[in-house]
Amino acid sequence: MADFTNIRALTFDVFGTVVDWRSGIAREAEAILGPKAHALDWGALANSWRRPILQAMAPVRSAERSYVTMDALHRETLDVALAEFGVTDLDETEKHRLAMGWRRLDPWPDSIEGMNLLKAKHAVVALSNGNIALVLSMAKRAGIPWDTILGADLVRTYKPDAAIYDSASRFLDIAPSQVMMVACHPGDLDAAKSRGLMTAYVHRPLEWGPGTERPLPEAGVYDVIVQTVTELAEVMGA
Amino acid sequence: MADFTNIRALTFDVFGTVVDWRSGIAREAEAILGPKAHALDWGALANSWRRPILQAMAPVRSAERSYVTMDALHRETLDVALAEFGVTDLDETEKHRLAMGWRRLDPWPDSIEGMNLLKAKHAVVALSNGNIALVLSMAKRAGIPWDTILGADLVRTYKPDAAIYDSASRFLDIAPSQVMMVACHPGDLDAAKSRGLMTAYVHRPLEWGPGTERPLPEAGVYDVIVQTVTELAEVMGA
Repeated sequence: MADFTNIRALTFDVFGTVVDWRSGIAREAEAILGPKAHALDWGALANSWRRPILQAMAPVRSAERSYVTMDALHRETLDVALAEFGVTDLDETEKHRLAMGWRRLDPWPDSIEGMNLLKAKHAVVALSNGNIALVLSMAKRAGIPWDTILGADLVRTYKPDAAIYDSASRFLDIAPSQVMMVACHPGDLDAAKSRGLMTAYVHRPLEWGPGTERPLPEAGVYDVIVQTVTELAEVMGA
Repeated sequence: MADFTNIRALTFDVFGTVVDWRSGIAREAEAILGPKAHALDWGALANSWRRPILQAMAPVRSAERSYVTMDALHRETLDVALAEFGVTDLDETEKHRLAMGWRRLDPWPDSIEGMNLLKAKHAVVALSNGNIALVLSMAKRAGIPWDTILGADLVRTYKPDAAIYDSASRFLDIAPSQVMMVACHPGDLDAAKSRGLMTAYVHRPLEWGPGTERPLPEAGVYDVIVQTVTELAEVMGA
């Protein structure tokens, strides 16, 4: 077992790792579109919305496009998802309300308990592609107990840009090796590892819905591989 | 009574408003210097250290000097304070430990209770001249329940620079009028008010020690004038 006594802060990915965006967006979409007599596959709609959001970050990362917040990306990509499902009857207010639905996501069942356990000995920090206001609003609604939030609006780029991981140890004033990145996405963890951070993989087989499970990483690829944040807290001796 | 239903976030000054830096630094100084047979007026030493810290922010604010963190200012101004008290026998390790004493300050007796009450309906945010790591370390030790920390290292200047207050509403994605600055220093509140923030004055008569009490601001100068953070929570309907 690796030695984790040196770890001072756990920096968490938010979307997928801490919160279940797919169920939350399915619920938000149904709440707004259901009463307008749309009967869609809400989970599929959530996936069809999430994909262009991820794609929209690439030109910001490569500096082809100036930084815009994830809130803004949610609003602009909504039109793509709605078009795909043939929805044409939302007004601007409804679209805004739905785009802000990404601020109203619920955590996975283990997230808050695990984070509270970890907080006893470690700083529990959001290192998110979400902007601060997005992650903070979500936390206030859902009771997610961040010690502090490092949003993408601080460095004005998106993970897995190396600048984000480098900024975490700089803002926290600790060595990269004292930071452990916690995520369910190999791409996030691989980039963190390449910048000298420790890594914890949390398995979220249902992130994209039933039947989309990715294989677990092989043992040793990351410093920790767990099924839940509570299991991570156990491993960290919290 | 003003209407505060529009307020979404309370942004707190930290040093003096939330924590009692004078008692904390007196204790830290005594812990390091006492065993070396120094018997000083520890509170006076704390004041003599705090003054050059505040002065050292001015050249950063005016851009005569590049931004350096408050942690760094603590270390460099320590030499000024020690010289004033004739202390010449601290080595680098001891000086570093003492400078980091600013991360180990305790809150005033009402701070945590008041903040926890306010958190039910509002975002409780640090808007500090401290860098994130300094404010976060202090919070972890003392149990200060920030929803998030906006440190001076984000904008790389010092209050009362207007850029800091403007950044608060930008990072929180709310109007300046939805932010209430909470501080015990008129200069901080005056600057916040001039940028459109609401203002709450908390009276901290002992900030600089016994016999240094400043007069209460006249009624109406700030939106709220209270004696404690718990009283602020009452006024805000928390």
